[in-house]
Amino acid sequence: MSLTIFGDSISGNCLKVKWTAERLNLPFTWVEVDILKGESRTPEFLARNPAGQVPMVILGDGRALAQSNAIIVHLAEGSALIPADPYDRARMFEWLFWEQYSHEPYVAVARFQVKYLGRPVSELEPRIVERGAAALARLEAALAVSPFLVGNALTLADIALVAYTRMAHDGGFNLADYPATQAWVARVEAALPIKDPA
Amino acid sequence: MSLTIFGDSISGNCLKVKWTAERLNLPFTWVEVDILKGESRTPEFLARNPAGQVPMVILGDGRALAQSNAIIVHLAEGSALIPADPYDRARMFEWLFWEQYSHEPYVAVARFQVKYLGRPVSELEPRIVERGAAALARLEAALAVSPFLVGNALTLADIALVAYTRMAHDGGFNLADYPATQAWVARVEAALPIKDPA
Repeated sequence: MSLTIFGDSISGNCLKVKWTAERLNLPFTWVEVDILKGESRTPEFLARNPAGQVPMVILGDGRALAQSNAIIVHLAEGSALIPADPYDRARMFEWLFWEQYSHEPYVAVARFQVKYLGRPVSELEPRIVERGAAALARLEAALAVSPFLVGNALTLADIALVAYTRMAHDGGFNLADYPATQAWVARVEAALPIKDPA
Repeated sequence: MSLTIFGDSISGNCLKVKWTAERLNLPFTWVEVDILKGESRTPEFLARNPAGQVPMVILGDGRALAQSNAIIVHLAEGSALIPADPYDRARMFEWLFWEQYSHEPYVAVARFQVKYLGRPVSELEPRIVERGAAALARLEAALAVSPFLVGNALTLADIALVAYTRMAHDGGFNLADYPATQAWVARVEAALPIKDPA
């Protein structure tokens, strides 16, 4: 049995898993789960992932795993997407945890509220707008001095961070204000390559 | 030069790092950083960690690392705190990412607002209270069938999750409502052992 990815195609967190599998040439089956229709909250789904979140994968041996960044780390173990150097690997994890705590809850949530819930950008909570902009500014500072987030090669940090950064305009952020980040988005999209629309 | 931990003793995220270093018998110097006085936002601190957050460590070779869970993973590489089995290790990471996304922003934030900002429990945002309770319910379901979060032994998942769970009462949550979790807190406190007040 090959990998099965339960994901919603509108979710950057789910696309991370797809891109990682594609990059690693891992065969997989994609099962579309519509978050907006509550399909990640059905009893059947909750039995597999009690957190009621996508992405969720069923591995080749039938066991389940959730949390986008935990999944991509597991899939990429031993590959070049995870730096072999212990410090570089630690820096990659630093970005992965920062993404889920300081980037996704603002950049992705702004997009979700605007694009999928129909909230005008002007009515977003100021806290979301400010922290989203702060997250993009932090990326910009890092990418102004480095082509990828950890050193000179693509790692899971780039895959995780590009997912919602490339869609930031949907939430009212303007990537033209972050030119190094905008160039990095194009670089990562070309390197993977990413074919999904942003 | 040994490990230097920049942390605020009131922060569970910082204590995670201290407990992991203690458990691993790693010598370290603790530098107290008072978040409430803005000490993690000074120019000197931001030069070391642009995210302006504690904990932050300076490793033996002088390089900096941030993000509590990235730090404990780095310190514990090769130790029994990280399962050798790839699937168990992936489940540990699942808990670590879930902690930062679905537990800390509610259980820790409720505590911070009540204990340090003086907000009455009755005036917490309903969203924080509901999601904090949901996080504790998820832990309870897992711990009702397992002595530790990943299998039968202490891992970083327990260290990361116990940090704010043992202080949940400060934010108005009652651990007596989650008896398996309450027993697990005592088990983890004894195993580490944790001497800091909850």
